[in-house]
Amino acid sequence: MTCGTFITFEGIDGSGKSTQARLLADHLRNAGRDVVLTREPGGSAGAEEIRSLVLQGDPDRWSAETEILLFTAARRDHLEKTIQPAVEAGQIVICDRFADSTRLYQGITRGDLRGVVDQLHSLMIGREPDLTVIIDMDPTTGLSRAKGREGTEERFEDFGIALQQRMRAGFLALAQEFPDRCVVIDGDRDIDAVAADVAALVEKRLA
Amino acid sequence: MTCGTFITFEGIDGSGKSTQARLLADHLRNAGRDVVLTREPGGSAGAEEIRSLVLQGDPDRWSAETEILLFTAARRDHLEKTIQPAVEAGQIVICDRFADSTRLYQGITRGDLRGVVDQLHSLMIGREPDLTVIIDMDPTTGLSRAKGREGTEERFEDFGIALQQRMRAGFLALAQEFPDRCVVIDGDRDIDAVAADVAALVEKRLA
Repeated sequence: MTCGTFITFEGIDGSGKSTQARLLADHLRNAGRDVVLTREPGGSAGAEEIRSLVLQGDPDRWSAETEILLFTAARRDHLEKTIQPAVEAGQIVICDRFADSTRLYQGITRGDLRGVVDQLHSLMIGREPDLTVIIDMDPTTGLSRAKGREGTEERFEDFGIALQQRMRAGFLALAQEFPDRCVVIDGDRDIDAVAADVAALVEKRLA
Repeated sequence: MTCGTFITFEGIDGSGKSTQARLLADHLRNAGRDVVLTREPGGSAGAEEIRSLVLQGDPDRWSAETEILLFTAARRDHLEKTIQPAVEAGQIVICDRFADSTRLYQGITRGDLRGVVDQLHSLMIGREPDLTVIIDMDPTTGLSRAKGREGTEERFEDFGIALQQRMRAGFLALAQEFPDRCVVIDGDRDIDAVAADVAALVEKRLA
């Protein structure tokens, strides 16, 4: 069996992880690699349906526990339909957010549910990425970048800088918890400089 | 804290469990009891949204594992929003199908996933009914009753009598597994005779 690679990008909002995921996909494709660029929540037809169910309408209509179950259902579908087949076909899968985001967001923002998230992951998902790129970023810069995006300002004003600081600390703690697969990249620089570091890291891992 | 009672009805399709749940609710209301009649999948606004997501469209687009996660998300919402508040307010909750249906249908029809269903239930639901009425029925009679309903024939022809026989045996095995809360009622009789037995059983438990 040929076997591809599963790479995820994580980081606080405004850290530039979606941009970096896309730039890495471009770089690898230019080098002749077969790449699937995807994102969570969503990334397969069924998972996108679940994403809409969770994110549209009143966000407070779901409890933290129900939301975790729905995100886990979406992740299971994404894994079965998109990630696993591509990895088994030898492709490189690049995913903007994965289980680490659930560990952080649900665990930190809505009660201490990290234990439940981990047990659900172990029972229904199992798989971890081969490499997780954590784009680290000063929370003030990240917040102002995220606020600059259309439609996001209101949501971010609800959350604020204190939460962003906890998120950053949370991602750095995850990097220490999973040192074999997590690499922290300084995202507080020119986009091309960050992209060059990411590309070098990934090329080294693929070699 | 006042505390109500949580009663579920289970049984093969065509066994008459929905009819019996309704007749029990009527009987208890006539006796002055405060009753909430509900059903699964569904039973709360969020759970009904998830029910539509699972049951509408191509049923094969979800794997067994994703479907179990979605049904568990719906059950969690139903429990939080409908069942638990009513029981805590001292009401009698009568529910047409609950976790036993998932144990049977997912465990028998789509791979041996009973272990996963039980672990998910233990992690995210926890609660069992105070009383489960299993309406037992000859599978041939049940199938012909179910086929008589508009819109169900095609689905049942796909499943057939062999599956109904396994379901019946499965519900009887569940009754043995959970003897404290499960009671088997012979549903192969006149509707009113069955209803009288159910009413007597419930009155005795409530006394």
